[in-house]
Amino acid sequence: MQDAIVTGFRKVPSFAEGLVRDLRVRWALNEAGIAYETAAVEVSERHSESHRRSHPFGLVPVFAADGRTMFESGAILYRIAETSPALMPEDADGRAETLTWMFAALNTMELPLNELSVLDLQHADQDWAKLRRPGAVEAVRTRLDALATWLDGRDYLTGRFSAADILMTTVLRLIGHTDLVAEYGPVKRYQTRCEARPAFRRALDEQIAGYRESAVAA
Amino acid sequence: MQDAIVTGFRKVPSFAEGLVRDLRVRWALNEAGIAYETAAVEVSERHSESHRRSHPFGLVPVFAADGRTMFESGAILYRIAETSPALMPEDADGRAETLTWMFAALNTMELPLNELSVLDLQHADQDWAKLRRPGAVEAVRTRLDALATWLDGRDYLTGRFSAADILMTTVLRLIGHTDLVAEYGPVKRYQTRCEARPAFRRALDEQIAGYRESAVAA
Repeated sequence: MQDAIVTGFRKVPSFAEGLVRDLRVRWALNEAGIAYETAAVEVSERHSESHRRSHPFGLVPVFAADGRTMFESGAILYRIAETSPALMPEDADGRAETLTWMFAALNTMELPLNELSVLDLQHADQDWAKLRRPGAVEAVRTRLDALATWLDGRDYLTGRFSAADILMTTVLRLIGHTDLVAEYGPVKRYQTRCEARPAFRRALDEQIAGYRESAVAA
Repeated sequence: MQDAIVTGFRKVPSFAEGLVRDLRVRWALNEAGIAYETAAVEVSERHSESHRRSHPFGLVPVFAADGRTMFESGAILYRIAETSPALMPEDADGRAETLTWMFAALNTMELPLNELSVLDLQHADQDWAKLRRPGAVEAVRTRLDALATWLDGRDYLTGRFSAADILMTTVLRLIGHTDLVAEYGPVKRYQTRCEARPAFRRALDEQIAGYRESAVAA
């Protein structure tokens, strides 16, 4: 994979630091040992015509490599994983299993976890958020309980580290401001195991350092 | 693809008819011309040990074929599409583009559309739902607006019908109880175009007929 460039946001509100989805791509590239450069778009410019040419929804990440530009972190990680056995098995069954858990992370888990995250981090002082919170927490618990059952006795989602674990860990981080994950031992140990990987630490440090540099430059 | 079996729910509340996610798999198999049988689990049995062996989160669909069992509709559709040029191009670039839009449907679009759907269809009489609704609608509009820009001048997401269109259409159906899609002409025409496909009609008729048969048998 040549000329890889990951685009994230230049600077984000403090509540979003460490949650923005270019972290997933940086982590995957670090696991795969693929060199890359980074680029940044201002949050205020995300719906500009030029950014929308790269990302129809005006979001990040955008990923370019080998002359092609892509969006959607799930699809980007699958593409990187197709080139790297560090991120996915090379046989059809292993790839199908990995993709299954990638969708499980970004749909089955993220739907309720994102709702609670947005509620707490962006709307906590609003009346509806206070009234909705118990139900939103219950929906999160239902998923964490099932995930804990699955992870009991497993180190990773598919029996080996893969791109699916990158997505699942970053989805779990969406509720890192709560103690919910800590109540589900196998999930907590799993998240800790994944976040202890050197490639994750490098990706996170680099993402945060990028925000600090823009703050100094501003 | 041999011995395909799609598992859905035996019977669902009327608000959920035509929205349950086994519809996606039935539609894909009809497009691909793959013969299949159906099976059903009672909603009340979804967290039973036997169903959880097939689906760790106690949901549907479950898909079995060629001696393997899978869950997650996105991953199931990708696997079916790998065997059928009717659902996805056979070259690497075309597959990456299709997978991008599959994730766009199930994450970027479904996160806000599912929130509004759950709010209206399951909690409409609750105070928080009334207070939250304007914000939830605004989040949906942001995505519909971007999707309309993308679809303007395109018949399908990737320039040809694919598995991504099956996912996007069924996600748009989540807010079929509202007039929101109708306000975005290119999206409305796109949904109408996709739902006019004979394979969709067959899949939907079959899913609904299944619910009616269980009602008669009960």
